Amino acid sequence: MGEGADRPRAGIVVTGSELLTGAISDANGPWLARELAGLGFEVAHVVAAGDRPDDLMRALEFLAGAGVALVVTSGGLGPTADDLTGEVVAGFAGVDLVPDEAMRVRIEEILADWGARTGFAGPALDEATRKQALVPRGATALPPVGTAPGLVVDRPGGPLVVVLPGPPRELQGMWPAAVAAPAVKDLLSTVPPANARLLRFFGLPESEIAATLREVGESRDLSGVEVGTCLRHSELEVDLRARPGAEAVAEELAGLIVERHARNLVSAEGATVDELVAQALLGKGFTVATGESCTGGLLAGRLVDRAGSSAYVAGGVVAYSNEAKTALLGVPAEMIATHGAVSPEVARALADGARDRFGADVGVGITGVAGPGGSTEAKPVGYVCFCVTTADGTVLARDPRLRGSRADIRERSVDTAMHLILRAVAPRGA
Amino acid sequence: MGEGADRPRAGIVVTGSELLTGAISDANGPWLARELAGLGFEVAHVVAAGDRPDDLMRALEFLAGAGVALVVTSGGLGPTADDLTGEVVAGFAGVDLVPDEAMRVRIEEILADWGARTGFAGPALDEATRKQALVPRGATALPPVGTAPGLVVDRPGGPLVVVLPGPPRELQGMWPAAVAAPAVKDLLSTVPPANARLLRFFGLPESEIAATLREVGESRDLSGVEVGTCLRHSELEVDLRARPGAEAVAEELAGLIVERHARNLVSAEGATVDELVAQALLGKGFTVATGESCTGGLLAGRLVDRAGSSAYVAGGVVAYSNEAKTALLGVPAEMIATHGAVSPEVARALADGARDRFGADVGVGITGVAGPGGSTEAKPVGYVCFCVTTADGTVLARDPRLRGSRADIRERSVDTAMHLILRAVAPRGA
Repeated sequence: MGEGADRPRAGIVVTGSELLTGAISDANGPWLARELAGLGFEVAHVVAAGDRPDDLMRALEFLAGAGVALVVTSGGLGPTADDLTGEVVAGFAGVDLVPDEAMRVRIEEILADWGARTGFAGPALDEATRKQALVPRGATALPPVGTAPGLVVDRPGGPLVVVLPGPPRELQGMWPAAVAAPAVKDLLSTVPPANARLLRFFGLPESEIAATLREVGESRDLSGVEVGTCLRHSELEVDLRARPGAEAVAEELAGLIVERHARNLVSAEGATVDELVAQALLGKGFTVATGESCTGGLLAGRLVDRAGSSAYVAGGVVAYSNEAKTALLGVPAEMIATHGAVSPEVARALADGARDRFGADVGVGITGVAGPGGSTEAKPVGYVCFCVTTADGTVLARDPRLRGSRADIRERSVDTAMHLILRAVAPRGA
Repeated sequence: MGEGADRPRAGIVVTGSELLTGAISDANGPWLARELAGLGFEVAHVVAAGDRPDDLMRALEFLAGAGVALVVTSGGLGPTADDLTGEVVAGFAGVDLVPDEAMRVRIEEILADWGARTGFAGPALDEATRKQALVPRGATALPPVGTAPGLVVDRPGGPLVVVLPGPPRELQGMWPAAVAAPAVKDLLSTVPPANARLLRFFGLPESEIAATLREVGESRDLSGVEVGTCLRHSELEVDLRARPGAEAVAEELAGLIVERHARNLVSAEGATVDELVAQALLGKGFTVATGESCTGGLLAGRLVDRAGSSAYVAGGVVAYSNEAKTALLGVPAEMIATHGAVSPEVARALADGARDRFGADVGVGITGVAGPGGSTEAKPVGYVCFCVTTADGTVLARDPRLRGSRADIRERSVDTAMHLILRAVAPRGA
C-alpha cells in the first residue's frame, strides 16, 4: 500500500567475506535498519559485500542509483590489508585520504594499551596506527569506541556516507556520535517522523489482513499508508507507517484492523507477548512454574529471558522420561499407562505438578510429539498437549497439531504456551 | 588470502519490507550463502530488498552487473499484493507471466486442506490460488513445500534465477528440487568443487590463527587458499577453501593449524560440539541430567534439540530460587547460606542433585550472575560456576567470568557447559 515516496531513503552496506560464506549471520544490518526506520527513513536496501574493493564500490554506486540520501556502512575499518572501507569510500566521494594527526595520537594511545596487554608492538603496530588515522579529505572522524575511528563523508551530490566499525558493540556505541555529527543532523532535520504503529495477532493468517486491507481500500484512500505484515514467533505482526498527511487514515485503518480481528489481537501498541506475560504476572504477584517434555526447557528459558524474571519465575522441570514425570512432578504412572505420555491428562498433571513442587501460582504443562520419531496414528508428529492451571482455579487446555520440523514444532510450542499463559493470567476484556 | 577469482559468482536477494525495518533478522541469506559456497560458488553479495518492484528489479540488475552466474531469491511468493517476485523476475528475464493449470490445481488442493482446518475460504482464497499459479513463460516451476511454488528462470545472457519462498522451512525444503532442476544442474557442472575444510576451536582467540597464518605464509605460498575465521557459539571456526590446484597446500595448512592449536581443537572435520556430545553419550550408553539456574533451561533445551535425544537426556530442573534448589535438587540450604547461590559448591551440588534425582550417569550444574542485577564485588555480572560430574567419578569444574549482555552470558554459559560435558564424557586423547 503506497510507495512511501515522500520519505528520504537510506541504504546499508555490511562488509566482511564471512557474511558471504554463511559462516555468520549479520547483526548490524537489522540493528541499523531499525534505527534508520525509527529516525523516519525508508530503508531501501541492506547489501552485504565481501572484502573486495570493486564489490564495495559497486554496492555504494548501487545505493546511490537507488536514490538514497544516506548510506551507513559497517566493518572494514581494522588494521589489516582487507580492511579497506575508508579507502573505497574516499574514492566513492572523489577525494583522497589524508592523515589526521589528532586521531593518530588518539589511536596510538589506545593501541599502546592494547599492545601492552597482548605483547604486540613494533613496526606492524605503527603501520596499523598510521592506516587507521587516514581520513578522507573533508570528512569528519568519529572517535573510536574500540580502536577504529568512524567517518562521516559528504559526497558531492549525495549520498552522505557514515562509516562505522564492524563489531556490533563498537558500532552501536558509536551510533550516538554519528547521529550527532553536523552533516547527519542537517540531513535528519529534513526527515519527517516515523509515525509507525505495530499490531500483533496470534492465530491469524496473513491472508485475512490482506482481505481486510482490500475491503477497507474500497471505501478509503489508503495510498498514504504503508502496511507490512510478517510472521514472527508464530505471531502476525502488522506494521503501519503513515506518510506525512496520512496520519489520520493510518490511525483509522489501525483501529479497523484491531476491531475486525479483536479475537486474535495480542497487542495494539506493539507490546510483545513476553512483555505482557511479565506485566500480568508481576501485576498479580504471581509466580509461574513449568513442567516440560517435548520443549525440553525452552519455555523456562524463554520465561527467564527477561531481566528481573526471578520475581515471577519459580522454576521448572524438564521431564523427558516417564520416570522423571512421575518422580519429579508426581504424574501418576497409571495415568501415563492409560492415556499415554502425550495426552491432555498428562499435560494437566505436569502443570499441577510443577505448580505444586515449586509452590507457584501458575503451572504450565507441555507434552507432545516433536518428531521425527515417536508418532502414532492417533498422535502424529506435531501433536502437542498444553495445559495452564492457576491457584485460583483457572484451567486452560489445548491440543493442536503444529506444523514443521522438530525445531519448528518446539518453537511453536513455546509460542503457544506463552499465549496460553497470557490468556490464563490476563483474560481478554479483563 | 587469494581472491578466489576463478570461481563462478552467485548472488542472493532476500525480499520483504520487514527485513528493512529491522523487525526481523534474515535467516535465508546466511543459509543460502553457505549452500552456494558449499557448491563451489563465490557469493558476491546478499541484497535485502523491500516489497517494491523497482527496488527488486534494481537489485537483480545490480547482481547481473556484478557478474554473477546465478541469483537465488527468497520471499515475495505469497498471495498478497506485495508478493511480486514472480512478476519482477519475469520482467527481468524479458518474458510474461502465464497461468500454469497443473500448478493451480495443486495449490487449490493444498489450500482447500488448509482452509478446511482453519475455517478460512472464499473469493480471497481463489484469488490467491490464481496468483500463485502464474509462472514466467519458459520457466520451470518447483512444487510447493508450503503453498507457493518456486521457479527456475533462465534469463537470456544470464544470470540464471532461482526463485524460492520466504519461510525458511519452505525454502530449505525446496532447495534439493532447485539444485536438481535441469538448468541449475547444467550450471553446476561448470563449477569447480568447493574443497572446503572446516576446523572448530574452543577458547582460542582469532589473533592466534592470524599469527599462525603469517608464520606459515613466510615459508609457503598460501595465495591459493582462502581462509576465513569466525566466532560462532563461542567457537572459532576456521574455514579453508582451496582454489583449483591448491588442494595440497590447503590440506597441509589445515594440518599445521590443527597441530599447533590441538589443545583448543573441537573437531578437525567440521563436527559440532552438539554432535560430539550426542555421539559420546550414546557411545557410552550414558544419560545426562541438568540442574540450571541462570541459564533457566536453555542447556536442557539445547541437549534435547537433536532428534533421538530421549536416548541420552534424562531431564533437568530449572532451579531459579534457593528454595527450588533445595527442594528439587537437594542443595543444602546451609551451603547456599555459607557460599552463596552462585558458587562452585552449589554448582557441584546442582550437578550431583540432577544426576541423583533423574538417575542419570552425567550431571551438569550451572549457577551464575547473568545480570543486569544481582552482582556483588566478589561475584560480578558474568561470573558463572559450572560443574559436570559423572557416575564413574569424574568431576570437572569451571568458574569463568563471561562477557557481554544478559543474553550473551546465558548463551555463552550454555556453550561452555556443552564443551565441559564433552570433556567429561570424551576426554581428549581418549
